[in-house]
Amino acid sequence: MNSREYLRILKEEIHSTVFATVDENGLPVTRVIDIMLVDDESFYFITAKGKEFYKQLMDKKYVAVSGMTNGEGSLNKKAISIRGKIENIGYKFLDKVFEENTYMKEIYSSKESRMALEVFRMYEGQGEYFDLSSKPIIRESFVIGKNIQVLKSGYFINDNCRGCKLCYSKCPQKCIDISTKPVGINQENCLHCGNCMLVCPFGAVEKR
Amino acid sequence: MNSREYLRILKEEIHSTVFATVDENGLPVTRVIDIMLVDDESFYFITAKGKEFYKQLMDKKYVAVSGMTNGEGSLNKKAISIRGKIENIGYKFLDKVFEENTYMKEIYSSKESRMALEVFRMYEGQGEYFDLSSKPIIRESFVIGKNIQVLKSGYFINDNCRGCKLCYSKCPQKCIDISTKPVGINQENCLHCGNCMLVCPFGAVEKR
Repeated sequence: MNSREYLRILKEEIHSTVFATVDENGLPVTRVIDIMLVDDESFYFITAKGKEFYKQLMDKKYVAVSGMTNGEGSLNKKAISIRGKIENIGYKFLDKVFEENTYMKEIYSSKESRMALEVFRMYEGQGEYFDLSSKPIIRESFVIGKNIQVLKSGYFINDNCRGCKLCYSKCPQKCIDISTKPVGINQENCLHCGNCMLVCPFGAVEKR
Repeated sequence: MNSREYLRILKEEIHSTVFATVDENGLPVTRVIDIMLVDDESFYFITAKGKEFYKQLMDKKYVAVSGMTNGEGSLNKKAISIRGKIENIGYKFLDKVFEENTYMKEIYSSKESRMALEVFRMYEGQGEYFDLSSKPIIRESFVIGKNIQVLKSGYFINDNCRGCKLCYSKCPQKCIDISTKPVGINQENCLHCGNCMLVCPFGAVEKR
């Protein structure tokens, strides 16, 4: 899938997400925030000038977001996490936010009551997509913004591998390909639990 | 409601939440985490030693959490946000986690595959509960832990109020009681948008 498709899932299938910022003591703060609009390479949300959230957004110009679809049960879900740079775009698109998200008119019914609201946009970010309903779980990385490279973090096997397969025996996802030496980790199924690194007698598992 | 009831909602009705920590650059990170167990004044979650999340938990011993129920539509939801101090309790209650949350056995099916998992507990925190399905929206504060006072943040009217009611005209929740002078804000319905402070000609609205 491309970024546009992940952004569509974020707005249409997830919509209500959790946003994290950092307070004046360097500690995290979270609250539920809706994804109001998306375009090819950004998403938009709103908040009111009176909120601590607004202050924290203006301070760091950075936010982390996670959300998941409403599937029944913990395993029947798609989840997206994305973190990156944001900018305040003032009242631009505020009318569009209310047009595309009519339920917002129930909270802010008059134009007057919307005076404190401003629009923010994430224009550059690193994202991860999880499909927990798939077995093994699927994990994919994506980016939004023009000049961003996908950052591949995870566990990787180096040449110290002797092919003992102890890692495979402890892997909850069985996502280690033991047909080669060194063995290989299927990154798109890995949970990043670290069992393989803990158990390897040869120091052949690296975390990047 | 008391803390125990909010914790019950967090585990039983919400269950899958978003946890925020802070990375080595002081920026927020989020991911989906389930609330595994609760007791009278704490909640429990697990993660694997190999994850960045684990490192960040051990570093700050602090986490912020938000989650919401699965109601259809953005306004048909209850949401809880809570932030506070956590501790690592190792393997204590790990078996209980798998007993009470049987779906976890689908991910970590063998005891061997659980070797990297450890249990954490939030033992002291400040929480907020929102019922977005109520009109006006209901907002309540609560705490977990024995020696914690409920922190009441929000907007308050001081004696500079002349009773002009301009604040009431801009309030999206109409949660300002204008039958008194100074007028009063119904804290349990306030969205913290700040319209009242922006519009007051007398500097009578204080943010605490």
